[in-house]
Amino acid sequence: MNRSVLKLSAGRSHDIIVGARLENLGRALSHVVSGRRALVVSASPIARRYARTVLKGLRSAGFETALGLMPDGESHKTMAVVQRLYRHALSAQLDRRSILIALGGGVVGDVAGFVAATYMRGIPFVQCPTTLLAMVDASVGGKTGVDLPEGKNLVGAFWQPKLVWMDMFTLSTLPDRQWRTGIAEIIKYGMMADRALFELLENNDLARLKKSPKFLETLVARSAAIKARVVSKDERETTGLRATLNLGHTFAHAIETVSGYKTYTHGEAVAIGLCAAARLGVCVGTFPLSGVPRVDALVTRWGLSTRVKRALSRPKILAAMARDKKSVNGGFRFVVPVGIGRAKVVAHVPPDIVVRILKEIGL
Amino acid sequence: MNRSVLKLSAGRSHDIIVGARLENLGRALSHVVSGRRALVVSASPIARRYARTVLKGLRSAGFETALGLMPDGESHKTMAVVQRLYRHALSAQLDRRSILIALGGGVVGDVAGFVAATYMRGIPFVQCPTTLLAMVDASVGGKTGVDLPEGKNLVGAFWQPKLVWMDMFTLSTLPDRQWRTGIAEIIKYGMMADRALFELLENNDLARLKKSPKFLETLVARSAAIKARVVSKDERETTGLRATLNLGHTFAHAIETVSGYKTYTHGEAVAIGLCAAARLGVCVGTFPLSGVPRVDALVTRWGLSTRVKRALSRPKILAAMARDKKSVNGGFRFVVPVGIGRAKVVAHVPPDIVVRILKEIGL
Repeated sequence: MNRSVLKLSAGRSHDIIVGARLENLGRALSHVVSGRRALVVSASPIARRYARTVLKGLRSAGFETALGLMPDGESHKTMAVVQRLYRHALSAQLDRRSILIALGGGVVGDVAGFVAATYMRGIPFVQCPTTLLAMVDASVGGKTGVDLPEGKNLVGAFWQPKLVWMDMFTLSTLPDRQWRTGIAEIIKYGMMADRALFELLENNDLARLKKSPKFLETLVARSAAIKARVVSKDERETTGLRATLNLGHTFAHAIETVSGYKTYTHGEAVAIGLCAAARLGVCVGTFPLSGVPRVDALVTRWGLSTRVKRALSRPKILAAMARDKKSVNGGFRFVVPVGIGRAKVVAHVPPDIVVRILKEIGL
Repeated sequence: MNRSVLKLSAGRSHDIIVGARLENLGRALSHVVSGRRALVVSASPIARRYARTVLKGLRSAGFETALGLMPDGESHKTMAVVQRLYRHALSAQLDRRSILIALGGGVVGDVAGFVAATYMRGIPFVQCPTTLLAMVDASVGGKTGVDLPEGKNLVGAFWQPKLVWMDMFTLSTLPDRQWRTGIAEIIKYGMMADRALFELLENNDLARLKKSPKFLETLVARSAAIKARVVSKDERETTGLRATLNLGHTFAHAIETVSGYKTYTHGEAVAIGLCAAARLGVCVGTFPLSGVPRVDALVTRWGLSTRVKRALSRPKILAAMARDKKSVNGGFRFVVPVGIGRAKVVAHVPPDIVVRILKEIGL
């Protein structure tokens, strides 16, 4: 078991536990919160497999419990689902000290987190991520989000959990494609902040990872610790530091948006985005040319693609990148790698360079 | 013009300007925020009278502006209206640095504030309250709220404005009943925190107030400063200090809920609640018996009632008070006056005392 602490301003902090057991969540939580009612929000099939374990553990620790189910999948990150969960919270008689627990992947965490942030002006919240992607990314850092028909995560709030509780056993039924989508984010952490992590990935592969719980815990704990460190220093994305977590993501979001979120998983798009960011780094002088084949090779090694499967409308890609909510007062901003293990934000990238990069990744 | 500062943790603070002019908001704002797009959210008839002035001032200060109208009245504090305002924000192309300005009474401020708190995980927000009640209460302190069919303000967020801008001229068309509803909150501030303010009210009346802009500014500035001071020390209502602002409000909310929000304005219910709280203070030993006729006399002096117009179902009143979201893990909690000029929270008030008080106010 591996513990990181996410420290925030005004003395707020919380634990991130990697390698915990779901059955022990109730006991751990009883030391962290004062309320004694808990609503677990989850989606099938995770709910069917694990909700009972969580609920039982909560009850033995003295909590009154309820289960609120929601449909999974990005298409359900809607205000309609949020409103349904408010009703669940009300009928479970949650008050301002009660706890809302998200048990599931990123969609469940984002939506349940938004409900926790806004029910009675915010109640305590716990993240139990059950996918590799949610473990290394969405569950850490306090971003919650809901989609509007016009775009992803246009509604949301910053709302930090009281605890992030990761049970590796929940990954045992994860499909390979979902493993890879999580790996893409881990590659990102190596590239932006941890050269040794990058090298660890260069010397291993998915088959090895799935056989070694110890190795898996190491990768997740190191990734979560990097994110926790960055978020500690720039919770609300005001200094530009937190923005470096978006390495590869401006490309990735555009690819996902223009392809209608059907062709690529988030991590598949991020992998392509990382290859693009490496090339952009070369163009703006922050990344060595020799790093490009190295990034491509690592992405390939873990079963991910370095370029899009088929071309998408380039004007649409450019428009999506300009609309990306990381853009401020118009203008292209990107995160680029600075060698392997560092990254920084560059603003005002000329459109002709952006187009050259898009061509390189098949767009 | 009178300036208070609301200071919060982590160095956050903002000005509360009493006696400002709407036409100068744009210029003032240009020194406070970095974005240059602004959406003004308002409702008729205020929008019809004043929106143009605000928009013009914003444009001369270099802002690109848009106006988003919403229907006024508590029945429109809904998630449906929130979603409509998200669309307004999107079509005005607001980004994360853009400003949302609430121009109106408490309903507009609560709903627009929630939109500002949750659009793109929160954007800068300005309160321009145009009713006496919103000036002395809702616009200061960062509470935003939306109703669910099950109850008031069950959804919301804490979201502090960058600026609170009060133009007394907007009160010139306020109906007398709305003046009185604001006065009830000012009486509350006197009772809970400012004996001299209480005495000032004892020596004046509504006719005098409406003729003296100077006196009006004094009352509003003192009330806003009290609220700002309390909120500075307990922004998220965790220490119990902020809860003292709810003097009279547990009774008031129950009266409003059970009478379906039709018979009493918020302030009318608060006035009755203050008379009840004075009596409860006597019962629990914090308030002198001689204070009760004094509170009753002040409430009456300003054209407010000391008791309900007609009886309401007592079981329903008790149930509503138990459900009040200030209650934690069940049990009756009340704020009681400690003499004139102080207040404190008392927990576990026995039901028979509560019933005795209800009878005193006609319930």
